[in-house]
Amino acid sequence: MDKLRKDADRITQACISAVLPDEAVKRALADLEAPEGKLIVVAAGKAAWQMARAAADVLEPDAGIVVTKYDHVMGEIPGFTCFEAGHPVPDENGFRAAEAAMELVRDLKEEDLVVFLLSGGGSALFELPLIPGEELQDITRQLLACGADIVEMNIIRKRLSAVKGGRFAVACSPARVFSIVLSDVLGDPLDMIASGPAYPDASTCGQALELVSRYDLKLSEKARALLAEETPKEISNVTTMITGSVRELCRAAAEACRQLGYEPVFLTDQLACEASEAGRFLGAIARSHSVTGLSDGTSQQRGGSLAFIAGGETVVHLRGHGLGGRNQELALAAAPLIEGLDAAVFSLGSDGTDGPTDAAGGYTDGCTMDKLKKAGVNVFEALDNNDAYHALQSVGGLIVTGPTGTNVNDVSILLIHREEEETE
Amino acid sequence: MDKLRKDADRITQACISAVLPDEAVKRALADLEAPEGKLIVVAAGKAAWQMARAAADVLEPDAGIVVTKYDHVMGEIPGFTCFEAGHPVPDENGFRAAEAAMELVRDLKEEDLVVFLLSGGGSALFELPLIPGEELQDITRQLLACGADIVEMNIIRKRLSAVKGGRFAVACSPARVFSIVLSDVLGDPLDMIASGPAYPDASTCGQALELVSRYDLKLSEKARALLAEETPKEISNVTTMITGSVRELCRAAAEACRQLGYEPVFLTDQLACEASEAGRFLGAIARSHSVTGLSDGTSQQRGGSLAFIAGGETVVHLRGHGLGGRNQELALAAAPLIEGLDAAVFSLGSDGTDGPTDAAGGYTDGCTMDKLKKAGVNVFEALDNNDAYHALQSVGGLIVTGPTGTNVNDVSILLIHREEEETE
Repeated sequence: MDKLRKDADRITQACISAVLPDEAVKRALADLEAPEGKLIVVAAGKAAWQMARAAADVLEPDAGIVVTKYDHVMGEIPGFTCFEAGHPVPDENGFRAAEAAMELVRDLKEEDLVVFLLSGGGSALFELPLIPGEELQDITRQLLACGADIVEMNIIRKRLSAVKGGRFAVACSPARVFSIVLSDVLGDPLDMIASGPAYPDASTCGQALELVSRYDLKLSEKARALLAEETPKEISNVTTMITGSVRELCRAAAEACRQLGYEPVFLTDQLACEASEAGRFLGAIARSHSVTGLSDGTSQQRGGSLAFIAGGETVVHLRGHGLGGRNQELALAAAPLIEGLDAAVFSLGSDGTDGPTDAAGGYTDGCTMDKLKKAGVNVFEALDNNDAYHALQSVGGLIVTGPTGTNVNDVSILLIHREEEETE
Repeated sequence: MDKLRKDADRITQACISAVLPDEAVKRALADLEAPEGKLIVVAAGKAAWQMARAAADVLEPDAGIVVTKYDHVMGEIPGFTCFEAGHPVPDENGFRAAEAAMELVRDLKEEDLVVFLLSGGGSALFELPLIPGEELQDITRQLLACGADIVEMNIIRKRLSAVKGGRFAVACSPARVFSIVLSDVLGDPLDMIASGPAYPDASTCGQALELVSRYDLKLSEKARALLAEETPKEISNVTTMITGSVRELCRAAAEACRQLGYEPVFLTDQLACEASEAGRFLGAIARSHSVTGLSDGTSQQRGGSLAFIAGGETVVHLRGHGLGGRNQELALAAAPLIEGLDAAVFSLGSDGTDGPTDAAGGYTDGCTMDKLKKAGVNVFEALDNNDAYHALQSVGGLIVTGPTGTNVNDVSILLIHREEEETE
């Protein structure tokens, strides 16, 4: 099993490296033609500083803006003004940053170019509300409180904003916009990532008003009027390149698995079901594809080692008061099903943070149940109490990477070790 | 989408036919050498009558016993005595049948042969308790009431029985036993199917007593003493052949898919997670492997049509008061995820019965959400209320086969229709 853990750690490193913003941004910018006119760089989101830092290595912008989370600016970048701002609830610092960005792109000409670097968290961090900041914060809180999902939140927020829903791109025109997106939304819908400042909005006023009535939102007259105003549906001055998406994370994981001798089977990059049940599904796959350890001993599987790969973002419906995260819960829930098998299930968040813990995710294998029993941990109680962190901690099953500087959702991997059939 | 539904129906027919007891039993018996001595046939379980009927076509037993559920004897079989008995709670009729079987195999010699045909439901139907029938019924009810699973129930019941846990095979010795098992337990653990009358028992007295204390079972002194008595751990006079297991169901489904042009991807035959979450997992797979309908339009999948196959027995934790079954719920939960895709998810119980309904399972495809909306059905409310039956009924999404005469768990299939890339 030591080999499986080592392989898991190597796959983890390889796939996170592949989606770090630095290299991705440099690759994307490598072939960019310098504009005849001005070059402006605007970077927004949790990875904005890293993306801008990488861009500054290959571009010489006339001016640049970075807006990211508090404590996410790691130093000065020549030519850039860096802002730190509120997330997930936007604040005045974010508004000031967006205002500075809008000021930079005002009155640009056709020969000018805006490089727009966007990453997760941009919805809150890159914001210039058309209503008072306090009301926007209040509406965001109302939406969070009534359990609205990110898609619904964005349908509302982009209509109350001077920059979202394609409006930033409209403000840049007639200059061209080259947008590099580090995606954190499943399926990469470009109008949803950071509420799509440079992408035509697919949502409609009808949807926005339906949400107002469904969630009984308290709104001012002005906000209500803005929700009835349509967002840009066609934008012609923008070229977009998605990089570091969860699909790329899965692709990198598959490549790393292949290099370690596992034949990768890509299942999905849009996993969105309950974390523990996803773990049980992977565990069921393990039981049917393993050659050893099944109670009936009749497994007819042949061939070499396998890696099943599922990317996405599972959910956890909290029932207990323990400590954990969706990736840790997924891995722990698989443990009883892979008991005794030469198999491992591990799952991690690419940002290095899983739930409110210092771990990126969790790892379990065929020995985990035995170790848990010896440690006196009841796996089912731990799952019921959403306490995967302490259970995994007791058996060395945490995956700890520290903050990675990227954020492209999670990847969950089932490794099954099998010997190729020997000729006797 | 009509093609997908037609394909689903053809796959349904093909895989159920493949696991019908009749052909399976005849195949298994084809090469059986007639004994020099007596030939006895004992058939127990929900498919006992069909299995015995098929056996009677190819064997001429000296005597035979059938014990099955009420209303499951479809006519006389020459040379056989047929019993109908209680299920899931065993009753006196079952006890009489088992007693008759024990009488038939008493004093057999080495040259004699017992053909033992076992199918699901045999735990309750083939029973001769070592305690009064009333107490056995009471213990079964206690176990059902406290949520014990089938594995736990069998650990207790086999110790209170003169026929379970290998004891029937011991009673047959020194005659040989040829056992044909139509499996309905995931992973086919032979000591668990019908509590393994002809298979050494893997469970221990320690486990039995642990269950007594965990579930606080009320027991007589005699019952308590029996639970402390070990079951046979080695049995040398039995040959067992598993047929019609869920693995065979999956294999037949894969073959049917291949013949219809879908490349089959076998995921598992041991699916045991929450039904709706399994549907969401399959839906996530559909989204990543479909070529059309994704919001970002960037799918890079290539190649022909695919079929992902998962067999097993999912569970439903009831929250509502609607009508449905695990297969219907699985299919319905996938519907929102496959909306607009050229894909279908269908799931069915091989016995033709899904939950307390007249349907075998459910079918949804890329058009289902649209149809549900037109029918005024909110899919999420239907799922919350465990009311998949009525939701599917309103859009023609029920799969109705009637009772099939077999019982080897469920199969869930995701069909993804893709055109091979054309050369232009």
